[in-house]
Amino acid sequence: MDANPILAEAVRGNWVENRHRGAFIIVDATGRVIASAGDVERPVFPRSAIKSMQALAIFDRHAADRFHHTAEELALACASHHGEDEHVDNVSHFLDRMGLSVSDLECGAHMPTNGKAREALRARGAEPSALHNNCSGKHSGMLSVALAMGVPTSGYVTREHDVQKAVRAAVEYVIGEDLTEDRCGTDGCSIPTWAAPLRAWAHGFARMSTGEGLDAGHAAGATKLFDAATSHPHLVAGTGHLDTLVMEAFGGRLMQKGGAEGVQCGAIRDKGWGYALKCDDGNMAASQAMVAQLLLTYAEPNAAQADVLAQFTRQPARNVRGTVVGELRAVAF
Amino acid sequence: MDANPILAEAVRGNWVENRHRGAFIIVDATGRVIASAGDVERPVFPRSAIKSMQALAIFDRHAADRFHHTAEELALACASHHGEDEHVDNVSHFLDRMGLSVSDLECGAHMPTNGKAREALRARGAEPSALHNNCSGKHSGMLSVALAMGVPTSGYVTREHDVQKAVRAAVEYVIGEDLTEDRCGTDGCSIPTWAAPLRAWAHGFARMSTGEGLDAGHAAGATKLFDAATSHPHLVAGTGHLDTLVMEAFGGRLMQKGGAEGVQCGAIRDKGWGYALKCDDGNMAASQAMVAQLLLTYAEPNAAQADVLAQFTRQPARNVRGTVVGELRAVAF
Repeated sequence: MDANPILAEAVRGNWVENRHRGAFIIVDATGRVIASAGDVERPVFPRSAIKSMQALAIFDRHAADRFHHTAEELALACASHHGEDEHVDNVSHFLDRMGLSVSDLECGAHMPTNGKAREALRARGAEPSALHNNCSGKHSGMLSVALAMGVPTSGYVTREHDVQKAVRAAVEYVIGEDLTEDRCGTDGCSIPTWAAPLRAWAHGFARMSTGEGLDAGHAAGATKLFDAATSHPHLVAGTGHLDTLVMEAFGGRLMQKGGAEGVQCGAIRDKGWGYALKCDDGNMAASQAMVAQLLLTYAEPNAAQADVLAQFTRQPARNVRGTVVGELRAVAF
Repeated sequence: MDANPILAEAVRGNWVENRHRGAFIIVDATGRVIASAGDVERPVFPRSAIKSMQALAIFDRHAADRFHHTAEELALACASHHGEDEHVDNVSHFLDRMGLSVSDLECGAHMPTNGKAREALRARGAEPSALHNNCSGKHSGMLSVALAMGVPTSGYVTREHDVQKAVRAAVEYVIGEDLTEDRCGTDGCSIPTWAAPLRAWAHGFARMSTGEGLDAGHAAGATKLFDAATSHPHLVAGTGHLDTLVMEAFGGRLMQKGGAEGVQCGAIRDKGWGYALKCDDGNMAASQAMVAQLLLTYAEPNAAQADVLAQFTRQPARNVRGTVVGELRAVAF
């Protein structure tokens, strides 16, 4: 197996300290390759980067017909949110509207990703709940699928549950290939995650972006999800995060979503291109440098958009006293 | 430049999620190579892994003659401590004994590395001080060098200060080669760090371990430092840390020290071998898996020692609900 190319590096003083390898691909909805580097056929876990794809089950299983999800709810279904008040309040309201509560979430609780939200919780002496879990919006969407299917919500996170079968089927339909048991793991929020080639993830995003190759129902659902996410970027991640900042900067042109362990997926919507990227070693900051470089090179950013991307292609590294001692930077490709 | 080999990988479910490349070398004091993998001639920043080498300046500049450092103080000079009470109290006493105080430290303040120490500080509503900085023991040792040299302590962290010149000279002497301005950066604690080949770092540790190739003063100083560190492993790192656990398990046989961004150095003392290892991407947990594998393979551990190493060659990965969903593991070599 050849090594993937170095796509980001960390410099300290005048010397390279760390090297981050990775692979990426950009394709259109027909599967035509726009650009690629490294091994894009090696299956990788997409983790949270494909929440919008998983959320298609909401349309497949007619949960959308029953609950008429708001754009905020659809954005949260695609989100790895930071547990800020806006996120927690919206997820809480989403559950409430379905006659459910935080106790129906099976994602587990973790401290908010957002620093201020964490401090506020600590200052109140409060423990985080499952509402603060970055996946609580996705899980609320999955609960809406369970209700629409008329199956018990309990155990909806397990591989055998009808909800996860529906999610798996939606993802398989969009990427046009099977997810197989020989490359399956459990995600941070306890649902299954399935490895597939970067090429397949990128292709799925291109198809969701254009509707090409999808039936009318999936095409319409995909548009609603991407519209919801790109018009509510703060709900999809949080204050200061790459996904939020670049979607704000690009308006509706760009769907961008990171996933744990260095995965980045999305669509350059006005070009009809999907992309998928993975940093081999799982470093998130390095994967952000890489995807920012990808968008700088291929998304035709204007000056303001390029400025936002530049915050991630070159990330200053500071020492304990706050002095800039180096940077994490993308390697141009 | 050929890619270094994969020395650790993260598995989720039944599929490899992340890959960590690296290089390592084990040499004796004559420079004979016992084992090696990857590019060991590429200069790397050793960061905190060579604190014991930097501490030789204490002997060079007769600070030891003036202050008669205790074994605890020498261990702390070699340490990246976790800010537990034992560490803070000993550093505080070390400074006090020299007529100095926390305000003389120029390492900056950060929260204790140890979780319980962090919680205790938060519960008291207290801010961390420079005493909690994992490098405060090393800095205290450097302050003792300044006092022994009769130079102002102020600015002792800068590259131009006589203390850092003394530290640089001690390191150059032990590794037998020059540190050069074209590969220099600033460490987390604001002192300079110089890149040199893994081969040179390993060679330095072999020489410190045996005294071979060193004058009597340096050889005696090196023995005192290694004896201090290996007889006070908790002072060198902290509760539950690899450095502490393996030095406790190996008794005086093993000097082991990690450095930021995936560096691991040390000496298998009874064999007279030095070793140095760097994870290319800077991942600390992966570098710990790698060095544990190195010691498992080459340090002839007994059953109890092997059990300790096995905690690091296979590190369980848990999701938000605490379920084991995979592991970070060394790739056998």
